[in-house]
Amino acid sequence: MTLDAVLARIDDTLPDACDRLLDLLRIASISTDPAFEGDCSRAAAWLVQELKSLGFTASARPTPGHPMVVARHAGPGRHILFYGHYDVQPVDPIDLWDRDPFDPALEETARGVVIRGRGAADDKGQLMTFLEACRAWKEVHGTLPGNLTIFFEGEEESGSPSLIPFMKDNAEELGEASLALICDTGLFADKVPAVVTMLRGLAKIEFTLKAADKDLHSGSFGGAAINPIRVLTRILGQLHDDQGRVTVPGFYDDVADLPEEVRAQWQGLGFDHAAFLGGVGLSQPAGEVDRTPLEQIWSRPTAEINGIWGGYTGAGFKTVLPAEASAKVSFRLVSHQDPEKILASFKSWIEAQLPPDVTLDWKAPNGSPASVMAIDDPAFDAARAALTEEWGVPAAFVGCGGSIPIAGYFKEILGMDAMLIGFGKDDDQIHSPNEKYDLESFHKGIRSWARILDRIAG
Amino acid sequence: MTLDAVLARIDDTLPDACDRLLDLLRIASISTDPAFEGDCSRAAAWLVQELKSLGFTASARPTPGHPMVVARHAGPGRHILFYGHYDVQPVDPIDLWDRDPFDPALEETARGVVIRGRGAADDKGQLMTFLEACRAWKEVHGTLPGNLTIFFEGEEESGSPSLIPFMKDNAEELGEASLALICDTGLFADKVPAVVTMLRGLAKIEFTLKAADKDLHSGSFGGAAINPIRVLTRILGQLHDDQGRVTVPGFYDDVADLPEEVRAQWQGLGFDHAAFLGGVGLSQPAGEVDRTPLEQIWSRPTAEINGIWGGYTGAGFKTVLPAEASAKVSFRLVSHQDPEKILASFKSWIEAQLPPDVTLDWKAPNGSPASVMAIDDPAFDAARAALTEEWGVPAAFVGCGGSIPIAGYFKEILGMDAMLIGFGKDDDQIHSPNEKYDLESFHKGIRSWARILDRIAG
Repeated sequence: MTLDAVLARIDDTLPDACDRLLDLLRIASISTDPAFEGDCSRAAAWLVQELKSLGFTASARPTPGHPMVVARHAGPGRHILFYGHYDVQPVDPIDLWDRDPFDPALEETARGVVIRGRGAADDKGQLMTFLEACRAWKEVHGTLPGNLTIFFEGEEESGSPSLIPFMKDNAEELGEASLALICDTGLFADKVPAVVTMLRGLAKIEFTLKAADKDLHSGSFGGAAINPIRVLTRILGQLHDDQGRVTVPGFYDDVADLPEEVRAQWQGLGFDHAAFLGGVGLSQPAGEVDRTPLEQIWSRPTAEINGIWGGYTGAGFKTVLPAEASAKVSFRLVSHQDPEKILASFKSWIEAQLPPDVTLDWKAPNGSPASVMAIDDPAFDAARAALTEEWGVPAAFVGCGGSIPIAGYFKEILGMDAMLIGFGKDDDQIHSPNEKYDLESFHKGIRSWARILDRIAG
Repeated sequence: MTLDAVLARIDDTLPDACDRLLDLLRIASISTDPAFEGDCSRAAAWLVQELKSLGFTASARPTPGHPMVVARHAGPGRHILFYGHYDVQPVDPIDLWDRDPFDPALEETARGVVIRGRGAADDKGQLMTFLEACRAWKEVHGTLPGNLTIFFEGEEESGSPSLIPFMKDNAEELGEASLALICDTGLFADKVPAVVTMLRGLAKIEFTLKAADKDLHSGSFGGAAINPIRVLTRILGQLHDDQGRVTVPGFYDDVADLPEEVRAQWQGLGFDHAAFLGGVGLSQPAGEVDRTPLEQIWSRPTAEINGIWGGYTGAGFKTVLPAEASAKVSFRLVSHQDPEKILASFKSWIEAQLPPDVTLDWKAPNGSPASVMAIDDPAFDAARAALTEEWGVPAAFVGCGGSIPIAGYFKEILGMDAMLIGFGKDDDQIHSPNEKYDLESFHKGIRSWARILDRIAG
């Protein structure tokens, strides 16, 4: 049976697959920081080379930002598109890393071997699971599986500014596929595979409050001159009420209640709330008091202050009254919440609270709505069966707290459903220091794709 | 008349005096930042050399921090000590400077010639007014004036950690003087000289709130994990009530009401509140609603957030839930407020508001009480008369919003009164980008000291 041969080939060649992933991880493709533009291009070029060596027709396509990588293998059967992103998050605070984030390595840990480095789990390790499955498939079958398009972007961690224009400009080419596979999510629990069918959206904004026309000395002006940090904390300190609800007017207007059957299914998952929070040193959920943590992260919208800064923040003390103070705030969105409407309401809410002499500088609002997948496509059941086979436990249909706007774009712009399957774990520390991807995630991830392709490709 | 000769000599040699000040301003003696330790030592050595050339016995005295400069000229009459500080504030935000802060120069402006550079007004330009008065005096009289000790410190902008130990260790030597002259304050109005008789104290603290044991991804944890920035803004947003009063329990317990006669004298000063705020781009006072801005900055205590930071603050966006958030907060103190008691109350107030899983890391509390001078020393009236003569308008006895803890230490440790006279202006931008000192302040400051010395020295 050729599937067994493919799986055996995957097992036998795992060290080589790891070496290839480490090569990719060494490229510091931080998309949000212009200083790393060259590294982003290098990562794209590396992938193009890899795809060509596998027999794809592949190229890096320029955009106003970082290049897209598109590859094609024409073959029999349903045309499937696979998506991943080669860019990574910034690495700060760098002093909390135990190794250079871009000098990745396999490390033995108490919980097994991990691949350590920025991007190991988000998303380079994940996208490589699919390429390695294709490689083993080809080595056994002599040809790549089915009828494939590969599509990698390099701006997922920086708001994907080029994505929509690129998808629109290339809708004919990309839209030939009828199903998208997206590998940028996690297992449900440590060893329980999942297909994500519900994704939160995201609206984000950076803004600055400005007061005096220069920094002032608090000895000369303290008490008489308004301090924009005081105004900023006063406003943001009221972003949540005592019940953990967001206070921006109209915030919950377009939030649908979770259907009772979904709530019931989620309760059946046996999610360990205490372990979820305990794993990061916390004991009490901080969200809406009448929701479980699983509901809080999968089905409820949030407001988070992701960054705040103002005044003197260096060593020592400076009794300055700063001229301005800034924050980065994001909202996770669900059901029908409209990112533009939410940000506009947030802006009005801030403006209504500004005292005299304080002005608001509103920078680059950006957002994408939540997605709910159409799970009547038979590929969903096929994938669930393949995952259940590989992992030995029933795969779950779950929600996801993170925002993967591309799932919505595939539907909206290219008219295809998306199936989100990934192998990350809660302790992967994505977006944080010491990011890792379990060798088990990588290995069984490759095997999972081989099984899924065996069922849905060709 | 020799005073006229001294004043004429000051006028004739002003360009040389400016050159000497520019030399001192070129030394980047930022005391709060360890990277500039060598520059602080260089500034001290430069002053020692200058004092020696004037005929003082002078030396730089080592401390655990930056050196003290002490100089002595034994002569007839009342032993007077002159104090200034050679260290300066940090220069950030550096991009708001129109020139290198340590490449000072005389600049023509619409409001006259200014000496531009970090420390020009705070405090190098001010301390040099006294040395230049001594120089002209010596060149005319053949000897330095009276019976003088000079005492310069290099840690005034970083909390003066070595000052009290040094004063105590050298109390016999420094305490021989019976009056301290301190030149670190400003004119009352643009051309109205002043003697400060009331100084606010200062209590300051940096602290950090810590929650999860690592930075988290807001997609995975947003809504369920507590965000320390949310807690920090919630707490600091309640530091003032709607009336502009500080809400920390007991904050006003030891604040005496301003005596009616002082309030009346201050009202007679004709302080232009609109111009005071308008000069920095503001229109409305932000302090206690039932106090005038002059009362707010001279006689009322304050709480200010001087710095705040947490999460991702770089270019682009990072949807992080940070592990910690920090702030630097200072309190200007008046009458009998005790810095330790105020900080302890602030700490308890924060702790009482912390939700589960959030801890407080309290760093290096530091403070000094307010000072009220004993103005029955005849030197106060003599100085007022000399200043009135030089500036052509009656000199005022005023309060000062800034904290100059050394005035209290002179009283407490060395048993001497302090007379605070300075020539800074409200638009000098001390502690801010583009700090300057008017050439008029420098020139008439030198002349003022010559007149004061003529009345009280020798």
